[in-house]
Amino acid sequence: MSLGEFEIISRYFKKPASGDVLLGIGDDAAVVSLRSGQRLAVAMDTIVEGVHFPKGTDAADIGYRALAVNLSDLAAMGAVPKWITLSLSLPSNDESWLDRFASGLFELASKFNVQLIGGDTVRGPLVVTIQIAGWVESNRWLTRSGAQVGDLIFVSGCLGDAAGGLAALQELSEITESTRYLKQRFLRPQPRVSLGRELREIASASMDISDGLLTDLDKLCAASAMGAELDVDRVPMSSQLRGTFDADRALNFALAGGDDYELLFTVHAADQSRLRNLKTPLAHIGKITALGTVRCVRNGATFEPNARGYDHFHSGARK
Amino acid sequence: MSLGEFEIISRYFKKPASGDVLLGIGDDAAVVSLRSGQRLAVAMDTIVEGVHFPKGTDAADIGYRALAVNLSDLAAMGAVPKWITLSLSLPSNDESWLDRFASGLFELASKFNVQLIGGDTVRGPLVVTIQIAGWVESNRWLTRSGAQVGDLIFVSGCLGDAAGGLAALQELSEITESTRYLKQRFLRPQPRVSLGRELREIASASMDISDGLLTDLDKLCAASAMGAELDVDRVPMSSQLRGTFDADRALNFALAGGDDYELLFTVHAADQSRLRNLKTPLAHIGKITALGTVRCVRNGATFEPNARGYDHFHSGARK
Repeated sequence: MSLGEFEIISRYFKKPASGDVLLGIGDDAAVVSLRSGQRLAVAMDTIVEGVHFPKGTDAADIGYRALAVNLSDLAAMGAVPKWITLSLSLPSNDESWLDRFASGLFELASKFNVQLIGGDTVRGPLVVTIQIAGWVESNRWLTRSGAQVGDLIFVSGCLGDAAGGLAALQELSEITESTRYLKQRFLRPQPRVSLGRELREIASASMDISDGLLTDLDKLCAASAMGAELDVDRVPMSSQLRGTFDADRALNFALAGGDDYELLFTVHAADQSRLRNLKTPLAHIGKITALGTVRCVRNGATFEPNARGYDHFHSGARK
Repeated sequence: MSLGEFEIISRYFKKPASGDVLLGIGDDAAVVSLRSGQRLAVAMDTIVEGVHFPKGTDAADIGYRALAVNLSDLAAMGAVPKWITLSLSLPSNDESWLDRFASGLFELASKFNVQLIGGDTVRGPLVVTIQIAGWVESNRWLTRSGAQVGDLIFVSGCLGDAAGGLAALQELSEITESTRYLKQRFLRPQPRVSLGRELREIASASMDISDGLLTDLDKLCAASAMGAELDVDRVPMSSQLRGTFDADRALNFALAGGDDYELLFTVHAADQSRLRNLKTPLAHIGKITALGTVRCVRNGATFEPNARGYDHFHSGARK
């Protein structure tokens, strides 16, 4: 247990640099190259023990999740993820923890051909920050701000599973096939990178759902200076979520629970047919309006949800 | 005190994007452009309360310092800093703290024309991570690994001031002109960005001194597969450091104290004259040898220093 910072990096995090990485881990900075016509897309996300994941979470899941949430940001832009830098603040240099953390991180990194090119390892509370960079074509990337009146609102996958999985981790001791599925959806979100690439030429606005559908749809509408009408009955929920929790709670998870990392996007009505060839399950859940707010409807009437979503500095302890 | 994450970002951190920033703060990712012939240099550094700065440090100094240590990494590469992303883990949304943090950060950012283009704000222990990116010409950047036998070793500025300043903060209640100077050297290091640019065509190897001269010279030698002979009497120390501490302690700070963020670099003997026109004070402190270790000499005899430097996972609590 006497590994120094240098040994931690070389044993767990240093991999051979390749391709567009001209200088990888180990110097004061890394050097990478972009091709002509490519623009650089960058995002950064931090996860904190006791805030974003419960104490005692398997380090492999922490490593996986820290990268997944960043990949999801680039997916929302329609970008191709390429390089990450990692800041790891750790209470101690527990080798089995580091080994598992690295295994979860690199499992997902390999899947998307993403290279770790640098970072920092410090002693402190358990806080993991990843900065991700990738490229996007110079002429078009997705933003939150392109939605127009009449555009149709879509989400990928099912919503609420991650919040249900977290609740299952904290409340339910009985392990069923459904709770196992939900926990995996919380611990191992699947970033929608290929969908984001496909949407580049189709969507008018896009973002990923990290803080909950209602909160994030609010943000998309604010960025686009638009409003929305959301048909609550169209919000897709898995059979596992509906089978584990009562209907009200399941709906609450789907509307206000964060951490699903599905894509929320809009398309002009005329472009709807272009979604047909995509393999990812998509659900049409509402439309963009000129009103400055998000109105929820159910059976044609206004519906008031119990909770709106998550804000780090407004809510109490989340997890 | 009820600012949400969104308000924190727009009130304190969002500035108009300009120049090569095609999409700034506020979306899932930022988008920037590089010119043809430019390569991207990236680095990341994290500072933790109670580890890298004492509890109660002025937030303006924390903001300044978080950026300074990152600028120093790009300086060591000979790169031009351009864009940063910021992860801020904060126990609470104290507005006066945020205001001061942002003032220190942007004071330094403006000086170097560096733009904040994204990041993450989360609730948690006080941990600040900055990822910095900039450009360097495609044909040459500085690394730690280019030193050759016979190269001369130089440092910029004076060493030990920051460690002396930290000791003064912790031990000395009497404020003198010298202790005020040393504290500023700890809290407000001056990244050597323009020196790094000038050295691009002159130095054979370069790095910044963050963990202490002996530790960092060890790293440079390891990266270059070389050794070094360090003339301890040539290590530059300020009159303020020598006037505040006894000779042994001052030397110890200069050799093993971290946080000076001066540049440590090597030049081929034939290139020494090319340093003459540079404005930054430089000191010739030794030479590169074929031996695999760093040998300290004093008056021609081997000298054994008391301490070697700082490693986050080997030492006890530092600060």
